[in-house]
Amino acid sequence: MIYLDNSATTKPCASAVIAANEAMCKAWGNPSSLHRLGVEAESIINETRSKIADTLGCREDEIFFTGSGTEANNMAIIGAAESLKRRGNKIVTTSVEHPSVLNTCKHLEENGFEVTYIKPQSDGHVLASDILNAVDNKTVLVTVMLVNNETGCIFPVREVAEGLKEMRSMALLHTDCVQAFGKMEIDVTELGVDLLTASGHKIHGPKGIGFLYKRKGLNNIKPVIHGGGQEKGLRSGTESVPLIAALGGAVDELKITASLKAMKELHAYAVERLSSLDGVVINTPDRDILPYIINISVIGYRSETLLHFLEQQDIFVSSGSACAKGKGSYVLTEMGLSADHTDSALRISFSKNNTFEDIDKLCEALKTAQSTLRRKQGH
Amino acid sequence: MIYLDNSATTKPCASAVIAANEAMCKAWGNPSSLHRLGVEAESIINETRSKIADTLGCREDEIFFTGSGTEANNMAIIGAAESLKRRGNKIVTTSVEHPSVLNTCKHLEENGFEVTYIKPQSDGHVLASDILNAVDNKTVLVTVMLVNNETGCIFPVREVAEGLKEMRSMALLHTDCVQAFGKMEIDVTELGVDLLTASGHKIHGPKGIGFLYKRKGLNNIKPVIHGGGQEKGLRSGTESVPLIAALGGAVDELKITASLKAMKELHAYAVERLSSLDGVVINTPDRDILPYIINISVIGYRSETLLHFLEQQDIFVSSGSACAKGKGSYVLTEMGLSADHTDSALRISFSKNNTFEDIDKLCEALKTAQSTLRRKQGH
Repeated sequence: MIYLDNSATTKPCASAVIAANEAMCKAWGNPSSLHRLGVEAESIINETRSKIADTLGCREDEIFFTGSGTEANNMAIIGAAESLKRRGNKIVTTSVEHPSVLNTCKHLEENGFEVTYIKPQSDGHVLASDILNAVDNKTVLVTVMLVNNETGCIFPVREVAEGLKEMRSMALLHTDCVQAFGKMEIDVTELGVDLLTASGHKIHGPKGIGFLYKRKGLNNIKPVIHGGGQEKGLRSGTESVPLIAALGGAVDELKITASLKAMKELHAYAVERLSSLDGVVINTPDRDILPYIINISVIGYRSETLLHFLEQQDIFVSSGSACAKGKGSYVLTEMGLSADHTDSALRISFSKNNTFEDIDKLCEALKTAQSTLRRKQGH
Repeated sequence: MIYLDNSATTKPCASAVIAANEAMCKAWGNPSSLHRLGVEAESIINETRSKIADTLGCREDEIFFTGSGTEANNMAIIGAAESLKRRGNKIVTTSVEHPSVLNTCKHLEENGFEVTYIKPQSDGHVLASDILNAVDNKTVLVTVMLVNNETGCIFPVREVAEGLKEMRSMALLHTDCVQAFGKMEIDVTELGVDLLTASGHKIHGPKGIGFLYKRKGLNNIKPVIHGGGQEKGLRSGTESVPLIAALGGAVDELKITASLKAMKELHAYAVERLSSLDGVVINTPDRDILPYIINISVIGYRSETLLHFLEQQDIFVSSGSACAKGKGSYVLTEMGLSADHTDSALRISFSKNNTFEDIDKLCEALKTAQSTLRRKQGH
């Protein structure tokens, strides 16, 4: 099996699986229980919290566990917007965020907020100046992803943070780092964000666990989920000790710098090989990208047809983000690519488990696809 | 170890652990992926959905997975209230619901809703007539738990459903079944509810998974978490396939009728033995209870002191609900019990793993506690 859909999800690593198991079989107490079994479970949670804090250069008590990256995005965006709504009702974001950001913004639009969606350039990049120009004295939140999940473009979050500071904006800055966390060095202070989202299953942890970084001192963020007051009241509900333990296991296995170096080589090789194929266009630009993702179009062939053809050769890719299940890529459309390109787009996304040989086999399979499959009508 | 805190959480059963493992090691695809790995993961989700539907006598497409019982309560209550807010702004509940219900109601109070909290009788029971008398033509939601998490009292949900029907109320009926699901037979149609909440970790599944039953035809419930549209748009975020698989494993191992019969015997034995101890009062009434829980007071001794004393003998109980971490029991206070009783309360909660011998050892340990520990000041 050649799995090239790692931006959709990754295979849980051994440390993650073992940690989940141990938490289920040994440390299965309720972290809220006052007795020893509770204390043991709580200490597992705090161990992972500490590991994540180390990775991000923040404090343990700035990390809040959630059931997904999506939930963390909701908490950040709704929480920040509601906390400042007496001072303003405007939000600035990009038009190519993950659906969990876009649809949360739409929800806020139904509740009196005004949202500006900044379009990317034709290469997929978003200009910091475009974002900052949209910020005014009613803007309470700017939310910009660090790495786009379809193109791999790194967005100028730090520049946006600096710009907001310069203009003395009251706006809080949130960044969805679901595709970035664990894949590039992130220091929350350097990045200058107030809120940051990440997810476990994109870094070889299990599905069902994410977290929110919330800067210490940001006290007015209200919860989205109400209840027993777990996670200091920000996210009620019994903590998923097994998945939190597993996330800790996945963080243990991260080798961010070494993996990034390997990915750069793999990515360069893939670009070289793929762009040498007739009719294949690389949609990912060649600068400011995280080399875990390449977006291509195989002009004349429908994404879904290609995807299923590749699947028959045991090669797994996606036609866009997994969450957009079957719909065309709005990211590429927002970049201004023609239907020819968007309808034939494939996202190829790597993990440390991929090899140069995987790329060779993908290229061979694409060539076979081109010679076997019927081109779309009109081509 | 004698674990008598099963209402706080239970030990995951072998089937649950194995299923989580298999989902992490084999079926680790993203359920939203269009390729085979996605389809495999999705089929695991739907398998558990079908098992739960069988247990509740409902349809598969009426079950929606969440990250906890708490989240399901939030979805039900906020969703139902918001869906009918143009027609009324009143909610009726009891004053002894779980914090995830009470605090969600408080959140709605801050947003224009009026909530009536019905108090229990002195024996812990809530009268259907008290609830129904509070319902008027502005009431959009009634939410009443099926089994109280501190006393084990079964609340008259079916009578409330019948009453609402008779008075042709537009109010939706939600029931928090976190302490009931898997421990007593529940048929959603017989019970007459529109919405029902349950959790995995109370029935030997793992922490981090719950679900909401939402009656087919109830179409206006809006999500609390927005995003990629998983769970038919009601709960976005990549589904936790491992935990959903594990929940399926736990449901497989349920033997509701046989376990209930065994619990009745265990409960009767515990009542007999505990009530024979000097200074021990049984707070759980003797009718209409689920025999998985006994609430007692050991007059003159602080709950927390007792809890830690018992812990030293490897006996684990709780001083109230785990989610109320360390705070006194508001449930017993609402029942009108004096501080003497509430401050010395212990919740003893069973699972199928408990034995008569466990009760004997608890009783011995309590006697030792009484002869060893200092009584509270004033006693």
